[in-house]
Amino acid sequence: MRELFHQSLEDVQGRLVEIAELVSAAIDKATRAFSTSDVALAEEVIDDDHIIDEKAVELDELTIEILARQQPVARDLRIVVAALRMSASLERMGDIAEHIAQLTRMRFPERAIPKGLKGTFKRMGELDVEVAQRLTDLLRTENLRIAEDIRNDDDLLDELHTSVFEKVLSDSWRGEAAATVDATLASRYHERFGDHAVSVAKKVVYLATGEWETDTDTIQVIIEGVRSQD
Amino acid sequence: MRELFHQSLEDVQGRLVEIAELVSAAIDKATRAFSTSDVALAEEVIDDDHIIDEKAVELDELTIEILARQQPVARDLRIVVAALRMSASLERMGDIAEHIAQLTRMRFPERAIPKGLKGTFKRMGELDVEVAQRLTDLLRTENLRIAEDIRNDDDLLDELHTSVFEKVLSDSWRGEAAATVDATLASRYHERFGDHAVSVAKKVVYLATGEWETDTDTIQVIIEGVRSQD
Repeated sequence: MRELFHQSLEDVQGRLVEIAELVSAAIDKATRAFSTSDVALAEEVIDDDHIIDEKAVELDELTIEILARQQPVARDLRIVVAALRMSASLERMGDIAEHIAQLTRMRFPERAIPKGLKGTFKRMGELDVEVAQRLTDLLRTENLRIAEDIRNDDDLLDELHTSVFEKVLSDSWRGEAAATVDATLASRYHERFGDHAVSVAKKVVYLATGEWETDTDTIQVIIEGVRSQD
Repeated sequence: MRELFHQSLEDVQGRLVEIAELVSAAIDKATRAFSTSDVALAEEVIDDDHIIDEKAVELDELTIEILARQQPVARDLRIVVAALRMSASLERMGDIAEHIAQLTRMRFPERAIPKGLKGTFKRMGELDVEVAQRLTDLLRTENLRIAEDIRNDDDLLDELHTSVFEKVLSDSWRGEAAATVDATLASRYHERFGDHAVSVAKKVVYLATGEWETDTDTIQVIIEGVRSQD
């Protein structure tokens, strides 16, 4: 039974990695489409989002099957429940990639990225892609140092998110209302993408350390603890 | 064991209702604070959000305990898993109430509601409060007609969300960038609040009908089916 459970967990992990890879490809395409006004690439992200949704539902079904058949307890049970939540966060990250693609399509043939913010959104897009790739690696390797990198990327995303509002609300902002709306929504999407990645990373830390974290500061303590040990 | 499980489910239901009531109070205060620039009321929502978070964590812990001790299978298992997801959605609705309160505080002593959109945001706020109250009733009574009402309210919220963008992007819009940012964010928060309520309502329908829904159209079929039966 224990061996069977171990195999099931490997299956769960493999599927989480697979979904994270799909999310990673989606955010890469969505942010490239956004910065180059490539509406065909944006359409691709929008058309493909259902694949991520379906994979997440399949993983949820597998998780429920594991709960029913193998009836894990204690830490094993918490691992399975954590997988259920990670799947929800990854699915939401896919939705956000779709929202960024939709912004691109909505403004076409105009550029969705407002003037004066190109560099900022280019950097936010790169960070989102980096975060998604790191998350894939974290899920695959369970190397907890990567969780710290994701947290750092998320801090940078938060700073850039703040800088977008500073720019838009400054006297030098010459953007029309459409540009202001786009900047606001796009910045929020990019920032939320990072938040969800941190949420998944926290659960991976839990899987590795056995500590059920709900508090954002505590994860840092754990990660730093892990770091100082290696 | 069955009796014990039944008691546990009643406990879960009672806690979901309790959290929904807290969310309902939070969105009522947040939308009133937003429309009247009542920063003290906004602070109250921000200060109290941790209570919703804590109640959600406690419910999650109870859910995990039920899974471990009573090891439900089949439909019982799915009910417990649905509760875990409803708790996450309710917690998120609390966060959104907090975001609306934060917008109010950020703009104080200015009004966060941009000119020309007062009526729209007043209506969105009322709908959000109504949605939260309906959700509380739905969780308490499991009367599936209420799920349909929530869906209708959410449709109205979506229409108002679209109308905000039409207004902001029209030639008649005279708002400064700050007003455009506020309108964009506030409208998005109000609209997302409705989405989460629909997501919880779908799960309640599942609890009552045994159908595990992932598709938004199918719920309508089920609800209509239920409606035509009564």
